[in-house]
Amino acid sequence: MMPEHLYSWELWFPLVINLILSIFFYFSSLKLIPTLAPAFIKANLFGMDMNKTSKEKIPEAFGVVSGCMFLLTMFLFIPVPFGQIILNNGTTSFLYSEFIKLIAALLSICCMLLLGFADDVIDLRWKHKLLLPTVASLPLLMVYYVTFNSTSVVIPKPFQPWFGRLLNLGVFYYVYMGMLAVFCTNAINILAGVNGLEAGQSVIIAISIMLFNLCELAGELWRTHQFSLYFIIPFIFSTLGLLKYNWYPSRVFVGDTFCYFAGMTFAVVGILGHFSKTVLLFFLPQIANFLYSTPQLFHVIPCPRHRIPKLSKAGFLEPSTVQFSVNEIGVLGHLVLKLFDKLSIAKIRYEGKNIVTNNLTLINFLLIKFGPLHESHLTIALLCVQVLCTGVAFIIRYPLASLFYDIPLS
Amino acid sequence: MMPEHLYSWELWFPLVINLILSIFFYFSSLKLIPTLAPAFIKANLFGMDMNKTSKEKIPEAFGVVSGCMFLLTMFLFIPVPFGQIILNNGTTSFLYSEFIKLIAALLSICCMLLLGFADDVIDLRWKHKLLLPTVASLPLLMVYYVTFNSTSVVIPKPFQPWFGRLLNLGVFYYVYMGMLAVFCTNAINILAGVNGLEAGQSVIIAISIMLFNLCELAGELWRTHQFSLYFIIPFIFSTLGLLKYNWYPSRVFVGDTFCYFAGMTFAVVGILGHFSKTVLLFFLPQIANFLYSTPQLFHVIPCPRHRIPKLSKAGFLEPSTVQFSVNEIGVLGHLVLKLFDKLSIAKIRYEGKNIVTNNLTLINFLLIKFGPLHESHLTIALLCVQVLCTGVAFIIRYPLASLFYDIPLS
Repeated sequence: MMPEHLYSWELWFPLVINLILSIFFYFSSLKLIPTLAPAFIKANLFGMDMNKTSKEKIPEAFGVVSGCMFLLTMFLFIPVPFGQIILNNGTTSFLYSEFIKLIAALLSICCMLLLGFADDVIDLRWKHKLLLPTVASLPLLMVYYVTFNSTSVVIPKPFQPWFGRLLNLGVFYYVYMGMLAVFCTNAINILAGVNGLEAGQSVIIAISIMLFNLCELAGELWRTHQFSLYFIIPFIFSTLGLLKYNWYPSRVFVGDTFCYFAGMTFAVVGILGHFSKTVLLFFLPQIANFLYSTPQLFHVIPCPRHRIPKLSKAGFLEPSTVQFSVNEIGVLGHLVLKLFDKLSIAKIRYEGKNIVTNNLTLINFLLIKFGPLHESHLTIALLCVQVLCTGVAFIIRYPLASLFYDIPLS
Repeated sequence: MMPEHLYSWELWFPLVINLILSIFFYFSSLKLIPTLAPAFIKANLFGMDMNKTSKEKIPEAFGVVSGCMFLLTMFLFIPVPFGQIILNNGTTSFLYSEFIKLIAALLSICCMLLLGFADDVIDLRWKHKLLLPTVASLPLLMVYYVTFNSTSVVIPKPFQPWFGRLLNLGVFYYVYMGMLAVFCTNAINILAGVNGLEAGQSVIIAISIMLFNLCELAGELWRTHQFSLYFIIPFIFSTLGLLKYNWYPSRVFVGDTFCYFAGMTFAVVGILGHFSKTVLLFFLPQIANFLYSTPQLFHVIPCPRHRIPKLSKAGFLEPSTVQFSVNEIGVLGHLVLKLFDKLSIAKIRYEGKNIVTNNLTLINFLLIKFGPLHESHLTIALLCVQVLCTGVAFIIRYPLASLFYDIPLS
């Protein structure tokens, strides 16, 4: 039998209003984005599309528009789940803390949008990419400290003999949460460079989280997942509005603003919903891309400024390559190349004293295996990988999790 | 005898920490601003100083930097006044609501910074100047609705026979609060155009609010005024950091970002502290400037794009003028000019069929009376007016208020 709360007004009413608001602002952004495009170009916020022959100016940093649409939806939604109950009819500390969580989460996301947009405009240096999400997650962590401060994690069964069932991570739990924000924002940022990819992957991750939340609505912790849906539904719709113009051929670019905004939203719902490990499962392609990229990111083998695929004369995308001399890399570099060659996950050619290898990104990897591809097909292929990984994540999350944990995970 | 709480740890400890953090970030911004200046110019965020002979590029919109310093101070300060008390030792609804107020206020200010910076970058149209503060004040109003929703105002004694002692304004109270945000942001924005004026007047208004809060710390509602100080002290220091580079001769401009940020901060403390009428008293020069400007703002007489003073060959500032034909203005326009001439608050010349009058701003008014002045002396003169008005405000607020109200106002 279905649990009673599944038929309750309390569960569905806020979600329906949230959905209606989200759809309204989806259509608003469809109208707003094209009218703002010329102003962005005039303000020097534009880029060239490197995978096109035309050298048209494409307005950039439109993540700030979808972010503002998201914030507007949320601002108008604030009173819906709480009404005027808080001070009037007996203050339950649960409602209070839910309310504080909502506002603090919005503060972190809003701050991330501000800093992300500033980064797009002022073009801060690479090291700030790590600093900005940390700053933006500060209010969330501070509010978490003041109101909850539960820093214990459940230990997987195989390790329980050593660590016990619960381990209090203390201050390291805060470090973990801050790093989650840094990871989520940058993970999306480095799986990028093809029309529609940043927004597309974010929509799929968001839909995955939504499905997960919907599955969990039947459980005991339904309020937590309802809370997560409050953020995820407006995020999906505001991003769909953006994706419509960012899809091949892009009429606007999303900018770092969007990657920061999307990553922070995922980190926030993961942290406040206590399902950050599940969120990370939905980041499998991003994690794979990061791991595959590490030899270049840590300069074990040379890394050019741009690693996006290159356009062939026939109009297809081919893997971009990097060329360097045998002496340029150390022992570790040679080992990595040998390993990658053995696993045939990179296309490596030795030309005399020179080595040519594809740039180590998931995008180029797909092109090695299935390319050359038309840009729109490449995006679709990458998004299919993302969907596939969501399937894998659900398998890990549900049937397999019981091997590691004996209490229901949330 | 002094009330007991004036000697309490609870009152002074958070304020001292707040002050220390503010001073730390004051020095940080002194370091940060010059290092960021070239990046702002590169990002096309610059303007020419119209009152200088050199046509150097001056980086603009640095309000975003002082705003971020303010936010950082506040983020780190969040746990100080609340500690971990909220969920642990018996949840008092007072502490909860204080905490929510703090976070919601930060959300409104952060959102205003985001929208203000976007306005500076993308150069939105005039009508948005009214829309943006309204949007940014939404979260505050929503939170106010959910948690407090007290919309009654005390009626001044002379009107009590008609309206009673308390009048419930209902939804109009929210309209009033929204308009307060619009007023405060734009009032600072239109009293501008001379090096150091926007930041200077904001510092003086902030110091006035601080003095008022300090006076009221002895009273029953000390917690409200302590709360206001949490915002005002970091605002003063972050703005002082900006003012150092914005003072004559300006090395950076503050931008609309700053006016939005400052105005929103004042509106927020006024609304949450329930002393919005007192805040408005500190805006006397801005109100005078607005009233004096109305004939031009509402196009009763012509209004040029820029109304800032003009630089004479001798290097002094003179009132700028507007010239138009007698037929260009209606009856109302002629009446206004006659009135202003009679009151000798404008310098009007009739040249045949043409009329020449100074542009109707407080800045030009001062120049008519005391000019021509050197730019730095003009700023100082305007700031002296601001200080004078604070004196007047305190006289109205304390000795005179008792004529109108019989309960202590807060």
